[in-house]
Formats: sequence, structure tokens, C-alpha cells
Amino acid sequence: MTIRRLSVYTRCLLQLEEDGVKTVSSQELAERFNLNSAQVRKDLAYFGEFGVRGIGYYVSGLKAELQRILGLDREWAVALVGFGNLGSALFHYKGFTRQGFRIAAIFDEDPAKVAREVESTPIFSSRELGREIKARGIQIAIMAVPAEAAQPVADLLVSAGIRAILNFAPARLKIPKDVRLKHVDLSIELETLSFYLAKPSSR
Amino acid sequence: MTIRRLSVYTRCLLQLEEDGVKTVSSQELAERFNLNSAQVRKDLAYFGEFGVRGIGYYVSGLKAELQRILGLDREWAVALVGFGNLGSALFHYKGFTRQGFRIAAIFDEDPAKVAREVESTPIFSSRELGREIKARGIQIAIMAVPAEAAQPVADLLVSAGIRAILNFAPARLKIPKDVRLKHVDLSIELETLSFYLAKPSSR
Repeated sequence: MTIRRLSVYTRCLLQLEEDGVKTVSSQELAERFNLNSAQVRKDLAYFGEFGVRGIGYYVSGLKAELQRILGLDREWAVALVGFGNLGSALFHYKGFTRQGFRIAAIFDEDPAKVAREVESTPIFSSRELGREIKARGIQIAIMAVPAEAAQPVADLLVSAGIRAILNFAPARLKIPKDVRLKHVDLSIELETLSFYLAKPSSR
Repeated sequence: MTIRRLSVYTRCLLQLEEDGVKTVSSQELAERFNLNSAQVRKDLAYFGEFGVRGIGYYVSGLKAELQRILGLDREWAVALVGFGNLGSALFHYKGFTRQGFRIAAIFDEDPAKVAREVESTPIFSSRELGREIKARGIQIAIMAVPAEAAQPVADLLVSAGIRAILNFAPARLKIPKDVRLKHVDLSIELETLSFYLAKPSSR
């Protein structure tokens, strides 16, 4: 099962919980959230113990189990490197906090931004990165820096003990195998749309 | 084959072309870009005509074919709705332009932003959305608006004739079936990382 699908199910279950729904069948889940019902059934079969024959799954129990698997049953302190437009947007993005990711420290090169606070979160100079990440026990970093700064920043993060990097910079990074790297390429999402518009059948 | 993988291959081939590489085997491609080699071989087998036995694939020919399939052999005019932090970051994101997506018009509610230009791109009031999108023949829209504005904006876009929407707002949208919708949930990417950090084996 891909981890991404687990995240999607968790979101659906959170929504159902907010709506006061106690139990849900895989078919209801699929219909309500436009998912592939065969896939949902197959995936949720792994979580048989949360299912009740003829009723479906306990929404809260299944949600809690998925959150535990995804590491969302705790708070993760996150370092944000780069506080330009994208960095600011990511800082204010509500979705991270809701899933337990708290931006604990921001780093930027620009002296005008450093030594301030944004909503109680301190902004440090990039030179303080190693010290602050170690002192705060931060394991996850989000990189929102220009492409040319990406590799040096990644090297600093790795030296500081970061174990997972979410990279928004349009650059391929070389990092040790024991550090998890996820690259977010925003234009790939647009390409899946242009694919459909470009198809001869929809012209 | 998922469309996303086609996008990834296209990027790899672009990189090889920039590096002056003329031909590549599926194994070289997989090794160089850390891809699953069995998957690459299977996927590229569809494009047999661009392959040469014992040599591999012609980089430029295969790249051009993939770009054509993805609709990247032309320019797409794109509307950007919402010009806050995220909207600004998306506007300045180099990756869109490189793949042929040109932001042709920006829309925002804030009167202080309207009637200006950013790098020759006009900013309009949301009230002008229908008129400008029709006049400019825009088919793709990127939504970077707050959650509560998302559905009304999506309705406006659909009425204006938009055929594909890339939605960054953390809100589920109801749109007609003939309009393509892609939702970007930035926290899902972080969850795939916390999953690995949370695994007992890596604790």
C-alpha cells in the first residue's frame, strides 16, 4: 500500500469524524470521497480488526491506527529553511500544524529577516542552522530556497543531524542514503492537467 | 502508465539533453536518476520506435514524444487566482514557465493589488474573472485562495469556461465532471517522511 493512500484515508476519516459519522464501509468511503472502491477495500482489509461485519469500520479507531502508522500521533518539530514568498506561504499553511508538524525554527540568509519572530517562531541566520537544529532536536526540514542554494543548505542540514528533507527548490540533491528526501515539483501537477487537455479525444 | 511517471522521465531526458547525452538505455536512466529499472524498462517499451537495439533510446526524440503526449509541446495560458504569499510564490516559480505554462492573468480580491502589473502580467479584480478568462481563452487555472473562498472561486472559474483547475486551497471542491481538478495537499508530502521516521525499525 502506498503511504500516500494512507494519508488520503486518514483525511477522509478525519472529515467523517468531524461530521459525526461513527462507522463507515469501504464502499461508502469510496463513494463519498471519489476513491477507487476495489482499492479501498483491498487496502482496508489490512486493518481487519477495526472492521465489523455488515457495518464497516469504526471511524475513530481506524483513523487513530492510520495516524499511528503515519507517525501523526505525535508532534514533529520542523525546520523551515528559506523565508521568501514560498517559505512564508508554507509557514502560514494550516495543513502542516493540523497534522502535527510544527515549524519550530526558521532560517534565512537575509539579515533583515533574522533575529525577528513570526507568530512566536524565531528566525535565525543560516550560520546558526547547525547549532539550533541540534539544540532543538529537530529531525525534519523543509527547504524553500533558490535552486543554487539548495545543495549547500542540504549539506548543512545533513551535518546538523536532519533525518528527512522536504525539498521545494527546483534542484536535484545529493544526500546520504540514510536521510529521507522528498522533492516537491509543483509543475508536475500542472502537467497531469495539460495531459488531459492535450488528449485528441478532448480537443 | 501513470502520467506522473511520464513527467519524471521527461525531466530526466531534459537533464541528459542539457548534459549533451545523445542516447540512453533504460538501465542507465534508472541508475542515474534512482528510478525502478524494471518499471522504466516496461514504461519505455511503449516507445519502442525511439529505441535502438544495443544502444538505447534517442534522448531528444524520446523527450519530444513524451512532451507531445503531456501537452508540453505548446504554451498554455494559465490564470492565477489569489495573490497572497502562496500566489506570489507560484507566480515566481520558474518550473511552470520552463514547462510551457505561462501565467497570463492574476486575480485577487484585494483592491490594493488590483490594476497593477507584476513582470508585465496584469492583476485583475475577481469580479473581472469571467470576462478576462474568456477574452484571453484561458483553459487552466491555479487556485491559491483561502479555504472559505475556494468553492465560490471554483464556481466562477467553471462559469468562465476553465477546463482544468490546480487547487492549493485546503478545501474539497464540487465541480462538474468535465472539468479536471487536481488538489495539491502539501502536508501529504511531509507525512510520507514522518512515516519513515516513525517506523519502529528506524527508531
